[in-house]
This record gives sequence, C-alpha cells and structure tokens, in this order.
Amino acid sequence: MALDLAALQELAVPGTAKIVLCSLDGLGGLPRPETGKSELETARIPHLHALAAGAACGLLRHVAPGITPGSGPGHLGLFGYDPLLFPVGRGVLEALGIDFELRPGDLAARGNFCTLDADGRITDRRAGRLPSDRAARLVERLREIRLDGVEVLVEPVKEHRFVLVLRGPDISGPLSETDPQAVGVPPLPVRPLAPAAERAARLVNQFVEAARPRLADAAPANGILLRGFDRQPDMPRFPDLYRLRAAAIAAYPMYRGLARLVGMEILKTGSTFADEVATLREHWSDHDFFFVHYKDTDKAGEDGDFEAKVAALERFDAALPGILSLNPDVLVVSGDHATPSILAAHGWQPVPVALASRYCGADPVSRFTERDCTGGTLGLMPAHHLMPLVMANALRLTKYGA
Amino acid sequence: MALDLAALQELAVPGTAKIVLCSLDGLGGLPRPETGKSELETARIPHLHALAAGAACGLLRHVAPGITPGSGPGHLGLFGYDPLLFPVGRGVLEALGIDFELRPGDLAARGNFCTLDADGRITDRRAGRLPSDRAARLVERLREIRLDGVEVLVEPVKEHRFVLVLRGPDISGPLSETDPQAVGVPPLPVRPLAPAAERAARLVNQFVEAARPRLADAAPANGILLRGFDRQPDMPRFPDLYRLRAAAIAAYPMYRGLARLVGMEILKTGSTFADEVATLREHWSDHDFFFVHYKDTDKAGEDGDFEAKVAALERFDAALPGILSLNPDVLVVSGDHATPSILAAHGWQPVPVALASRYCGADPVSRFTERDCTGGTLGLMPAHHLMPLVMANALRLTKYGA
Repeated sequence: MALDLAALQELAVPGTAKIVLCSLDGLGGLPRPETGKSELETARIPHLHALAAGAACGLLRHVAPGITPGSGPGHLGLFGYDPLLFPVGRGVLEALGIDFELRPGDLAARGNFCTLDADGRITDRRAGRLPSDRAARLVERLREIRLDGVEVLVEPVKEHRFVLVLRGPDISGPLSETDPQAVGVPPLPVRPLAPAAERAARLVNQFVEAARPRLADAAPANGILLRGFDRQPDMPRFPDLYRLRAAAIAAYPMYRGLARLVGMEILKTGSTFADEVATLREHWSDHDFFFVHYKDTDKAGEDGDFEAKVAALERFDAALPGILSLNPDVLVVSGDHATPSILAAHGWQPVPVALASRYCGADPVSRFTERDCTGGTLGLMPAHHLMPLVMANALRLTKYGA
Repeated sequence: MALDLAALQELAVPGTAKIVLCSLDGLGGLPRPETGKSELETARIPHLHALAAGAACGLLRHVAPGITPGSGPGHLGLFGYDPLLFPVGRGVLEALGIDFELRPGDLAARGNFCTLDADGRITDRRAGRLPSDRAARLVERLREIRLDGVEVLVEPVKEHRFVLVLRGPDISGPLSETDPQAVGVPPLPVRPLAPAAERAARLVNQFVEAARPRLADAAPANGILLRGFDRQPDMPRFPDLYRLRAAAIAAYPMYRGLARLVGMEILKTGSTFADEVATLREHWSDHDFFFVHYKDTDKAGEDGDFEAKVAALERFDAALPGILSLNPDVLVVSGDHATPSILAAHGWQPVPVALASRYCGADPVSRFTERDCTGGTLGLMPAHHLMPLVMANALRLTKYGA
C-alpha cells in the first residue's frame, strides 16, 4: 500500500538534491533460448553493473501481474501515478504522440481516413494507408469545420491517421466510437455513454456530418472514423505533487507528451541520446528533477533484434558516465515496461530498477540484470512506489506521524 | 493484502504459547561510507545471528514505500494496525509520552507557553524555553479553569510544553490550531473543521480566554498556543483483537503510552534494559504476549553516533540469552523504524525482522543484517502483516474457510 497522492504531497518538503530518472524504454528482456541469457545478461555494461552494486535494486511492475503496459501506463507508473487510477485514453495518447499541447478538459479522439462506397459503407478502414502528405491536405479541409461553442483542432499524425480535439467548456466523454471495426457497414453515429457526454456526442456527430461534403471528392479518403474519445486524466501535477522543479528530456514526442501530461517542463533537445545528455548538462542548475528517456532499447526489442537490443544497452552504458559526472544525489535507472526481443513486443515481465543515493542502503545485487535484481532490497514493487522512494532518498519527505 | 482486523479477530483461538516481541527502536541502519557496512553488519552480535539462522527473516515496512515513520505509526504497525488507517495525532502522542492515561473520547492537544506583547501579539512561541519547574507552577493555574460539562486536565511536559486534555461526552475534533507558527501576530482562535467539532471549538476558545487573566503577570509565559488537537484513534483493543493477555515492558513513557493506546497492560519496570528483562522474567506466567522495548539503538542513531549504535546493538545481543532462557514459543526481534546513524534521524528504510518458532520454517538467512534479511522468507512486508504471522506461529489462529 502506498500513501494516496494528497497525503504524500503533504509530506513533501523543499530541498536541494538533484534527481535523475533514466527510463530505458522496454528495458526488461528475456533469455534467448540459445544461450539462456537475457539482453542485459549478454551485454557488456560495466557502468550499469557498477551502479547496481552501489544501489538499491529490485524489479518494477507497472500495472498489475501479467499485464503488459503501454507507453502511457508505463511512464505514469514511473512518475508515481497508479496507472489503474489514471487511465490515459487512445485519443489522448495519439495527441501526446505528436507533441500536441493538450489542455485539461480537451476531448481528444484518434481519427482515421477511410473509404466509403456509394451507399456510405466502409470498404477500407485505412483509406489504402493514405500517404501522409495527402492526409495533411485533407486535414486542412477538416479544420474549416466550425462547431457551436467549441474550438475544433485537427492534426495529421501519419498516413491515414489524425487527431481530433474539441476544446471548450463541458466537453466530456465517454462516447461510443464511430469505427465499427468492420467493412461492409457504414460508420456508426457517436452515442453518449453518460449523461454528461450528451453535448460532446452531438458536437462530434455534427463534425462527422460536416466532414462528409468536404471529403466527397477525396476517395479513397472520402470518410472518417473516430475512436478513443477521452480527456486527459484529472491528476495532480508532478511539480505540485512532489514540489520539484521537474524537467523532461526526450528525443521522441510521445515521451515529451507524457511528461507534459503530468506538468513537467519540456526541455528542447536533439534527436540522439548524446543530445539528451548534453541538454541535461546544460540545464543542470535549473531543475531538481530530470526525466531522461532512452528509446533505442525498445525499438530493437520491438524489432525482435536481440543483438540490436544488446548494442542499445551497451550504448546507454557508454553514455552513463556522462550522467554520473554530474553527481546526481539520486540516480534511478529503470524502464517503462519490458520489450523482450524474443517476444518482439511489449511484455508483462517486471523491469529491473537501480536506485543510487547516499541513503539507498546496501543490497546483495552487483549486476544490473533481471535475475540479479530479483534479490534486491527493493523487491518486486509497483512502479508507482518508486517516486516516494526517490523523494525519500533526496531527503524531500518529512516524517509521517509524530 | 491482509485480513481486516474484524476477520482476523474471528480466527483467534485460545492457546498456551508464550510470545515475546522485542522492538529495537530505530533498529535499521545504513552502511557507513568508510567501510560499506551498516551498524548491524559492524556489530558483534552472535546471539542475534544465531537467532536469525533459526528464524524466518525478512524486512518490515511500517507505513509505505519511502515514508519515514514516527514512533506512533512505527509501533502501531508492529502491533498489527495499519498506521494509514489509524493515525495518531500530535496531541495524543504528547499525552502518551508523559504516561498520561488517555481515555477513549479524550481530546488532547499539545500546548506551548508563549510570550505576548502588550497588543497580544506573539513575540516568542516558546516563552524563552521556560524552565520546567516554572512551567509546572503555571500549569497549576491553568488547572483552575472550569468549563461547562467537561473535565479540564492539564499536564506539564518539559520546558514550555504542556498537554491539554478535555474529557467529557461529544468532545470531537478536528479543530484548527491556535498557533500561527509565526511571531508578530496574535494567536488564532480555534475553528471547528467539521460540524461535530463545534462544541469542542467553543470550549477550547473559552479555555484560552480563561487562561489570559491567569497568566497576565507571568511574562515571558503570559500566553498559550495549542495545536495537534486529536482523539486517540478508534481501534480494536489488542487484547480483544488477538485474545492475548498482553503486557508491555518499556522504560520510556512514550512506548508505554503507545502500548496503553492499544489496551496492553503496562508492567512497572526500571530504567534499564536489564530491568526490563527482569520484569519479563518476573511476570512470565501472567501473560501470553510481551512487548519489550529497547531504546538505546534509536538514541545513538538520532545522535548520528555510528559506534554508539553498534555498542547498543551489542548490549542488546548480550541481553538476548536472558530472554531466550525463558523459552518463548514465538520470539520476534525487529524495530519500529530505521534510524541510520549516517542520517541522524528516523529513516524510511525497511527494518530487519527475525521470527523464531517451532513452525517458522527455514530460510537461507544466517545473519541478522539488512542485507541478509533481504533474502529471507518473509520478504519485504508491511509491518502490520507481522502480528497475524506471530499469531499463526503461536497456533492462535484457526483455519480460514472450511
């Protein structure tokens, strides 16, 4: 059991410690049958092993036993929010993934261009995977749509995908989806799934209606499908909750988006991890807390490329001294979920974590692997318990009870 | 997840086993950077290591990950009460700390004598740290105050501090504090923070009003400040919950107070741990359960004195055979929180625990240290899960479900 966030916030006190949280996306792996060794067990990662030897180690579980986290829940867990209490909808995630500056109360949906036949029945749910430039021009047409009392924002994503955001007072879900997830049938009207959603349902249906003539000549992209309507979860902002001047450094927009969702400041950085470390160094004096995201581990894992994931771990290991040289008071290395190469996808396996600080305590772990971290003093713990520990190690929490 | 207390109580059955729970205050430590070894790893504690070798070991977390427990929550956890469900307010703790026999329904507050200027503004929140004997004489004046329908109890604590207790029907908080935590402003009137607290607020304000003329000539202690109004939590009594004839042996009043809070019988003892062990021996046949408190570990830790904490551990170790010679059926050694010497304060780190009984099972731990207990069969567990395990090992819990 963790303290609820309001109670935790009451214990937060000012301090001067510097905290770095490195999220190696998809960090956790699985042994390859040929060798019986996981990616971490195969890689030459002397700096990570040395870090683990001086750190408190364990395993993080981000959602629940056996549950594979998406990037949203995975990172919310790392940031200290129980992902089961703060669900992030698909529309919101899609908006975050393109650096869209979603505001509290915005209703976001994931959109697809689709192909409709003469009778209005869907013949292709992805409009032949429409080229991105063509989709961007059609998005311009959708932006012309005006709805009563709300702002209509439409952003292209990639190929046939776009994001629709309605901004204004009292725009609330939940709404049913227009995508019937089948061909040969027409798109569905949106229905409110709660009384508070009636206005939003009416407006979305008006949007779909208004899109029809604007796309009539645009076959194969002569229709749209909308799903995953959601607002961002109503959650305490990270800087308020922990009283930290918190910054995020991430080359990929999705992770900037997730950090923005919880109210972190987003630092401009380049496209490589070396750029990220340079950004960290440059802004070292401006913030107490840095979330630093490393993408390569996940990409290699998703590709099912064991060797590439090993190489990605070794590249991170080589960059670690650049972070250590800043002498953070608390340094955490973990990840948002496992992406075992032999699975070639996100996995449910718990993810190694090492937490190093002057006060982290000793444990018997001296190698940063899944197997070794099992014996660590942090045990197997919910990911959202990590931030209270980080705060404690930074001496940023006062005593509970007299 | 633990059984709730009502369900647990239904499983409790009579028995003859003798149980001893030793709480080494502030037991847990941290490695000293010079040696990489904690206090427990440094101390020569052969009896504790031998106990651990034959016991089930693990680590206790008293409140929640990263949360540093005060003495109240720490001991409530050891006694089987989730401290998050049974908060103990500052006024209650202050009363417990002077052996005050608080009763259910009593509203307790922590009081300070303070200095007021001619305009009633606070110039010193602690009245120049008034000498204790002078404060005791002023407390006599406050005891003269009569309020309608309630008993007014005032007890000196130390220097400028005193405890105010209102005893009577329907005296309930929560109340705001009169202490503005600042000088240059007058004390605040008490406000009820819930409708049920209106009567108590009125009475407390009358008390403050009545104190004014009685202290008018007592500068620098010509005013009072009150805070931490609270009643003791409404909780099942330990002897009823576990059906144990439970006794507490503690040289320090605070720990007697915490044991009294849960309804244990308090055994009169001397001021040393040898006295406590003698008391244990003397009353061995009268009770099933003994809570024995050892203070020295915490004192040394709070002083930041690593060597003194090592010595305190060694003194406890030397006294342990005196307890073992009584042949308790279940012997637990643990603590209420960590007090790492390098932190010189209570810490959030989990605390080693060893539970020895005929039925405790084997584990690989053969040394009683933080690092070794990490690998114990009890794992890292909430402290309030300990008592059900103790009860089970004493064969005092029947089967759950047919």
